[in-house]
Amino acid sequence: MDTVVNIGLVGFGTVGEGVYQLLRENHDIILQKTGIDLRLKKICDLRADDIKKNLTGVTVSSDWKDITGDRDIDIVVELIGGIEPAKSILLESLNCGKNIVTANKKLLAEEGTEIFETARRLRGKIGFEAAVGGGIPCVQALKGGLVGNRIESINGILNGTTNFILTMMEECDLSFGEALKEAQEKGFAEADPTFDVEGYDAAHKIAIISMLAFNRKIEYDKIGKEGITSISSVDIRYAQEMGYVIKLLGISKMVDDEIDIRVHPTMIHSTHPLASVRNEFNAIMYIGDMAGPVTLTGKGAGSRPTASAVVSDIVQIVQSIQNIEGYPIITETANYLPADKRLSRYYLRVHTLDEPGILSKISGVLGEYKISIASVIQQEMDCDFVPLIIMTYAAYEHDMLAALDEIRAFDFVETVIFIRVEDSIDWGDKHE
Amino acid sequence: MDTVVNIGLVGFGTVGEGVYQLLRENHDIILQKTGIDLRLKKICDLRADDIKKNLTGVTVSSDWKDITGDRDIDIVVELIGGIEPAKSILLESLNCGKNIVTANKKLLAEEGTEIFETARRLRGKIGFEAAVGGGIPCVQALKGGLVGNRIESINGILNGTTNFILTMMEECDLSFGEALKEAQEKGFAEADPTFDVEGYDAAHKIAIISMLAFNRKIEYDKIGKEGITSISSVDIRYAQEMGYVIKLLGISKMVDDEIDIRVHPTMIHSTHPLASVRNEFNAIMYIGDMAGPVTLTGKGAGSRPTASAVVSDIVQIVQSIQNIEGYPIITETANYLPADKRLSRYYLRVHTLDEPGILSKISGVLGEYKISIASVIQQEMDCDFVPLIIMTYAAYEHDMLAALDEIRAFDFVETVIFIRVEDSIDWGDKHE
Repeated sequence: MDTVVNIGLVGFGTVGEGVYQLLRENHDIILQKTGIDLRLKKICDLRADDIKKNLTGVTVSSDWKDITGDRDIDIVVELIGGIEPAKSILLESLNCGKNIVTANKKLLAEEGTEIFETARRLRGKIGFEAAVGGGIPCVQALKGGLVGNRIESINGILNGTTNFILTMMEECDLSFGEALKEAQEKGFAEADPTFDVEGYDAAHKIAIISMLAFNRKIEYDKIGKEGITSISSVDIRYAQEMGYVIKLLGISKMVDDEIDIRVHPTMIHSTHPLASVRNEFNAIMYIGDMAGPVTLTGKGAGSRPTASAVVSDIVQIVQSIQNIEGYPIITETANYLPADKRLSRYYLRVHTLDEPGILSKISGVLGEYKISIASVIQQEMDCDFVPLIIMTYAAYEHDMLAALDEIRAFDFVETVIFIRVEDSIDWGDKHE
Repeated sequence: MDTVVNIGLVGFGTVGEGVYQLLRENHDIILQKTGIDLRLKKICDLRADDIKKNLTGVTVSSDWKDITGDRDIDIVVELIGGIEPAKSILLESLNCGKNIVTANKKLLAEEGTEIFETARRLRGKIGFEAAVGGGIPCVQALKGGLVGNRIESINGILNGTTNFILTMMEECDLSFGEALKEAQEKGFAEADPTFDVEGYDAAHKIAIISMLAFNRKIEYDKIGKEGITSISSVDIRYAQEMGYVIKLLGISKMVDDEIDIRVHPTMIHSTHPLASVRNEFNAIMYIGDMAGPVTLTGKGAGSRPTASAVVSDIVQIVQSIQNIEGYPIITETANYLPADKRLSRYYLRVHTLDEPGILSKISGVLGEYKISIASVIQQEMDCDFVPLIIMTYAAYEHDMLAALDEIRAFDFVETVIFIRVEDSIDWGDKHE
């Protein structure tokens, strides 16, 4: 039987809208996967009158007490940010016997222990995955997947704005000012970027995650914070020359019984798991004494990724209360995509005799099957068989295999190697 | 009050020993973090007599019925692998009202639906994080963190042996045979490597994770499997030239209502999140419709990482049954590491007048503070102030800051930039 859960949402900004969208678009898939029927019952926002006009099936109020005082609401989601009234809303929700979900990193970093202590005392659940790393399930990884580990250190790229700026500086040879401007144009930086570029935002996040990892109260003021405004492209260039990249890292580790916690620009070797995290992406690397280094990478901000984290908190709170989870739900047997519908790019290495007209014959066969060539490498070689390297555009595998049969049948062809190419997805970068 | 949980362990091989070690070393930290008192009550292994000699505080038997029939055991951990008797042990455990944890990828990939169906019918919990990706919490990320998402695709480096071989081929210019030999010497490949290099192991894992992501029964035989034995370093070289790397990927995605699922060598662009996953590391990239791409990287095998996954399953099963979790436990206020105990390497960029003897004066100051220089870049420049780039060995920050004050005081020094360098940790590679 499905479990109905009524949600009250306080704050209908970017993330609030994302949660609303998610619950509309993916309500059924969540129900199917978990048996949980999530219902957004009430929204509270100061712009209630405007919001009301565009939404159906949900009550909108401008008074948050309409949510905390509603007996039918099981979980209160706080998305307004800042200390007050967010703190009062969360505490009052706990007092009313509700569970809470928040994305409020400032509140948790600066006054989290009071919230946690109240939750514990009242046996209320609190979810805050969205407060650190947006759509990356990094809180859950720490509380769940790594629960058997003593955490030795945490290193994180915890701010997308600064990572975007540093990536632009490195890859496009921009100055800090130019890269900041680009970030602002793309919506990755605020008009006043201080909070991000000075490392304050990253410090909030490393504080929260370190509290959880080391079970210690951490005073936000005690965290050393240094931003990226003094980084110049000259340093990025020299770092590259020595095999390093510069990232703004949040770092914390336990040294005996003392915590070393700070945010600053850091050089890391190009083979470091965080070195390849580009653009606005965030990442966090935990080192556990059992698991070793575990790195999670994804979008650290934005409406949809943050909504993903909020809803995962809601579902997990319901699952832990109701004890309704524990086995995968297999609804039906899969249908398999036939090869003639499978689309991909291909790399071909064809070894042929060194004769004239060969490229034209091979490309002719590819053309017959409507396979276009993206690039070719053919080099002069001092041997009987020369390699011809072809990268194609996307084509159906079925066609590719048929073309390969014809190519292999040519008497001037010795061997053909073919490798599928996966790309064209959005991982924060349109590289072609 | 603490919750006592009795564990029965079937199979005392590498992973079994890891679980035993973990429960000894980290019992107290788990208790402190979660309030769960994990006790390894019984071990079953055919070599019971040998094992008994080296262990204390735990019963060892050679008959698995001693575990399934023990009323005090709450959770049975199956670590013997293969179909039988593993399947009988798991089904019998469920029948006896126990919850189960398994690392058995073959069983779950080939007969998982029967196990899942039985668990669901009997309302038993099943944990199988250790079956996919070793210490990487990738099952949990899918079930928990991404539960609000429609999963669009999964791409994974799911086999450490083949990733190690491909990395060696790429970075050390070895042939497949040479790289395989190196993998065997390092213990990353079996004497008979067929199961790994032909993609069968990766296919088991992509089957399990796809079942979970798409809620479909997947027949292992229907998965296209192609190994890496035909990959030559020539192809790796050409791929590099075009900006790509070759990885053995497990791939699955839903195309309308059909699943495209396969394992084969794949070219991915060097900026792809999986391109930088090196050596024996595993990684999995989920693309969710809300969260976007989320990538998890870590050690995919080995005694300690796999034990970490097993224990995380145990804890989560207990938490979901007992409803005993939901707030971080803050035990005390942190003590902070003072700067004179903070150790790091440093990058310095010093702009000086172009005069003789300057390097000796600056290195003299560093020497006074016992800071050794690892490398220096000084280039001829056609301007008044020339940059001197210094990379130091590890030194205390306190000393570094004092040395910087002295260096800044020289009248030939214009500006000094200093950036901390983080490295020297084990992320699968000793790069210096």
